[in-house]
Amino acid sequence: MARVLTPRSEDFPRWYQDVIAKAELADNGPVRGTMVIRPAGYAIWERMQSDMDNRIKAAGAQNAYFPLFIPENYLRREAEHVEGFSPELAVVTHGGGKQLAEPIVVRPTSETVIGEFMAKWISSYRDLPLLLNQWANVVRWELRPRLFLRTSEFLWQEGHTAHASEADAHAYARGILHDVYEDFMRQMLAIPVVVGRKTVRERFAGATSTYTLEGMMGDAKALQMGTSHELGQNFAKAFDIVYSSAEGRQEHAWTTSWGTSTRMLGGLIMCHGDDNGLRVPPRIAPIQAHVMIVKADPAGDVVSAAAKLRDALRDAGIRVGFDDRVDTPFGRRAVDAELKGYPVRIEVGPRDLAEGNVVVVRRIPGTKTPTPVADAVSAVTAALEADQQALYDEALARRQSLTADVSSVDEAIEAAATGWARVPWAAVGTEGEAKANAEGVTVRCLTRADGSVPRSEDEPDLVAYLARAY
Amino acid sequence: MARVLTPRSEDFPRWYQDVIAKAELADNGPVRGTMVIRPAGYAIWERMQSDMDNRIKAAGAQNAYFPLFIPENYLRREAEHVEGFSPELAVVTHGGGKQLAEPIVVRPTSETVIGEFMAKWISSYRDLPLLLNQWANVVRWELRPRLFLRTSEFLWQEGHTAHASEADAHAYARGILHDVYEDFMRQMLAIPVVVGRKTVRERFAGATSTYTLEGMMGDAKALQMGTSHELGQNFAKAFDIVYSSAEGRQEHAWTTSWGTSTRMLGGLIMCHGDDNGLRVPPRIAPIQAHVMIVKADPAGDVVSAAAKLRDALRDAGIRVGFDDRVDTPFGRRAVDAELKGYPVRIEVGPRDLAEGNVVVVRRIPGTKTPTPVADAVSAVTAALEADQQALYDEALARRQSLTADVSSVDEAIEAAATGWARVPWAAVGTEGEAKANAEGVTVRCLTRADGSVPRSEDEPDLVAYLARAY
Repeated sequence: MARVLTPRSEDFPRWYQDVIAKAELADNGPVRGTMVIRPAGYAIWERMQSDMDNRIKAAGAQNAYFPLFIPENYLRREAEHVEGFSPELAVVTHGGGKQLAEPIVVRPTSETVIGEFMAKWISSYRDLPLLLNQWANVVRWELRPRLFLRTSEFLWQEGHTAHASEADAHAYARGILHDVYEDFMRQMLAIPVVVGRKTVRERFAGATSTYTLEGMMGDAKALQMGTSHELGQNFAKAFDIVYSSAEGRQEHAWTTSWGTSTRMLGGLIMCHGDDNGLRVPPRIAPIQAHVMIVKADPAGDVVSAAAKLRDALRDAGIRVGFDDRVDTPFGRRAVDAELKGYPVRIEVGPRDLAEGNVVVVRRIPGTKTPTPVADAVSAVTAALEADQQALYDEALARRQSLTADVSSVDEAIEAAATGWARVPWAAVGTEGEAKANAEGVTVRCLTRADGSVPRSEDEPDLVAYLARAY
Repeated sequence: MARVLTPRSEDFPRWYQDVIAKAELADNGPVRGTMVIRPAGYAIWERMQSDMDNRIKAAGAQNAYFPLFIPENYLRREAEHVEGFSPELAVVTHGGGKQLAEPIVVRPTSETVIGEFMAKWISSYRDLPLLLNQWANVVRWELRPRLFLRTSEFLWQEGHTAHASEADAHAYARGILHDVYEDFMRQMLAIPVVVGRKTVRERFAGATSTYTLEGMMGDAKALQMGTSHELGQNFAKAFDIVYSSAEGRQEHAWTTSWGTSTRMLGGLIMCHGDDNGLRVPPRIAPIQAHVMIVKADPAGDVVSAAAKLRDALRDAGIRVGFDDRVDTPFGRRAVDAELKGYPVRIEVGPRDLAEGNVVVVRRIPGTKTPTPVADAVSAVTAALEADQQALYDEALARRQSLTADVSSVDEAIEAAATGWARVPWAAVGTEGEAKANAEGVTVRCLTRADGSVPRSEDEPDLVAYLARAY
């Protein structure tokens, strides 16, 4: 087979670009830093959205939509927040053919505008918790854009909630972290994320706690796959989100926010892709089984067997693709199917069919098995289940083998050249963190020794994960 | 019952604003002309989206996502297009803390950027048709904004397709018009739209044919609910969308575009709402049946009967709401349920329950029927089906009774004071159209005498619908 992609070992970033182009996932937009998500990429995003949306609704949040445009002064109300975002803003100065009296910012996140409306909608403890989520585009100007990972415009969901107490806000932010995000990433994306707490230095602007989910990519770098924040009463104070308690006192609410984005698509590609292209986890795959006609026969038996199989798979609840473009050489179509990462393809050709067989090709283990037509549906069903797990196991094994336990910052920096380092936080501290940062290595998160997520970075015996990251 | 809303007959625009505020559907955003879609409104939009999205996919189109930001020069390539949009543009002049070398436009529609990428992706007749759709926000600066109907930012779907021949493009634009839009509006929204062709004056900038779906609102004004356009080869020529034909010739493609937006939410409110609030068609209602506890009893029988009924309704595939806020007076909750327009509510209280009954309240016919608990699910199921139809029939009867057949422009202008006018297009013409426009009356569309949609406005015996419109 001719070389279609740059091998990962040769140049991982180049391989990443190649996969995105050849699998037709995305393209650069005409304005620098923007992105076109092509149908093959968008179909994966739609499935992510749909599964995540169900989980968010199960967590009690309601979807809403807030405006793209935010008055510039809103961002100034929370001091840290504006510092965090001002270099990344896109500013509208003209509208309807005229210069605007006050410049308008294109939302980099909706914290501030949602804060404003929470203040309007909340008056009593009976209005709490207020649990909102929105699916939207946001803009953060990027100087070094990279498709899906770092684009000036990206798509995301942002949850924003207000609670009567710090304990409620904490419980909710952690519920989203584990029950929505972690479970989704493990179960659906097959990515064995490490879940922990960000250091003060890495915390979201205006938050009191930032929790993160970190995935290890194919080049052993880390990718932040999602975050959940407790904002304390910072935003409530900046935006006057006040409620009267059951005892009749005026209290500031406690707020949270949490988000995941199209960046997860980049994570999916970099975690599971191989030198032949994308490998999509079966549960998230828009096409789980791709029926391909190898070559048509004069009698039409191949086409009718393939169509029958497609219908049988569909009836079994499997998402099916169908390729009958027999005027395109089969080899080229097979390469394309590898690139696009369909978990299973079923090749239907005259020679195998004469023996009552089709060939079941599993993208993840890379097996090709002649299978009696009558057994095809059950073989595919079993393959999809097994290969979802196999992908997870493979990613977990890589993460484990490429994570080194070390005891100093210097060792951690060294280990981060080829993987992740796990090091006692006490041996790092803010000084060690600065030293690592100077070498391009960051503290991805802090966990407890048992892997659970700490309530504060001052807890004893915390473990820090250090790595290079996207 | 205290008066909650301004009656429609007194002040229809005020009634509309009242419904939106009291039913908690939307709010004005902080930047003039923008809108916050609140959870109760967004939930209806989500159901519209989901049903429409299935229809669009059944029509063969694939979803994709194109950037929010468009280089200003793109809009200049198609002369009529830029003229149509330039007074409505929002312009970004600063990004990442710097003035931009070239100003960027926030998309008012994605025609131009999608045209650019179609040109990249299409090379042979084998690549056609290319059928794309996107769900996105767009910005058109509004001087006189009105929630849902005319906002500076709105949400929509925009389809863009490229075809090998004019006949294919025509067939596709008309397929979307009838099989996707018309069917959705009649079947799901219960709005008996008139479907026709726009005059040259009302046509989309750059189109060769614009088809429209017009709904009659509660005040007899017209609302354009959606449009589908044939763009001829205009955009293909402006953006070099060229393919090599089976015969090896280089040909320009024929393109279409089509869109519907959050404006449909405004149409739903104004078509079906009454003086007590919203009335949501059962098929599109996020909550179809709302179980309400009138008053709890010490033994807890009411609560457990209500919960049982909720589960039984859910098991029957009905979307159920549940109101057990017994610390809020029942009267206030009932008013709220009327405002929000749940098609059916089921009141569960100790007195009725003692006789084995609950009260089934149907929002659309306005009936209240004590119903044996055992019959409640079947009563609700039957009510939902009947009331979907009743809403449609009511809207159709209104449209028919308020549409006058007249024979001159002057009569049409007069008739438009209280309804729609149907008049021979030959009696109007471009001159009559200008005269009507001067009086605030527009030609909503042209149809054939049998109601079908003409291929050209030069066909003989066309009928023009004239009306005041939103």
